[in-house]
Amino acid sequence: MVDPNVILFRNETFYAAFASCDLAAMEELWSQRHPVLCIHPGWHPLTEREDIMHSWRDIFSSQGDSVMEIRCHAPRLMTYGDVHWIVCFEQLPAGWLVATNGFILEGDEPQMIHHQASQCMEPPEVDEPPQPQ
Amino acid sequence: MVDPNVILFRNETFYAAFASCDLAAMEELWSQRHPVLCIHPGWHPLTEREDIMHSWRDIFSSQGDSVMEIRCHAPRLMTYGDVHWIVCFEQLPAGWLVATNGFILEGDEPQMIHHQASQCMEPPEVDEPPQPQ
Repeated sequence: MVDPNVILFRNETFYAAFASCDLAAMEELWSQRHPVLCIHPGWHPLTEREDIMHSWRDIFSSQGDSVMEIRCHAPRLMTYGDVHWIVCFEQLPAGWLVATNGFILEGDEPQMIHHQASQCMEPPEVDEPPQPQ
Repeated sequence: MVDPNVILFRNETFYAAFASCDLAAMEELWSQRHPVLCIHPGWHPLTEREDIMHSWRDIFSSQGDSVMEIRCHAPRLMTYGDVHWIVCFEQLPAGWLVATNGFILEGDEPQMIHHQASQCMEPPEVDEPPQPQ
């Protein structure tokens, strides 16, 4: 039984890669051995690893490969053997999303197999107050 | 290794329950033993089975408990041991959604552990032509 913090930390690694537009970190995060699925908000599902990496490259390029203002809030973990699912909120300048991120243990390493982000009509209650503008 | 058709059929059972506003069938479909997660379009995530069942009751009530015009298209299955994930398109009168549905084997029975439906900006190409209005 893996320590839940290992999975939660891996989820943080995903958001760190996302926020810093780090394509190499994304490459390392996503599984090479298992089926993968990525659904960006409003997009069709991507089920090929290569297409998923292209999508991250395009998203990062649209930011000028600099930084993305994205923060993960209130992650909650669900575990099914070696398969782990995190549901969380994503805070972006344009608003809030709700996201699921899936990981599978490959040896001791949780590798990403799933990301689905979808619109969230009402902002969640989060611990931190918004930063002053 | 379970026959993929068993999971795909279970996914059809979910959409049959959805389309016919059959709360009893939903009760039977959703796992009582594993963590569950349901994210309706725009909603916050529901992680308690009771809240998920309330949500279906509310959705079905809003239809007058009659029928829901929902159809599943182009389901694709991803398998991780006993955990199975289907990604598909949902066709509704108001437009298209992309959905993920998760199932876990409990004995021989795949029980539902996950549903996330999110907006889809462009309709997919599907085999069947739209019905005449």
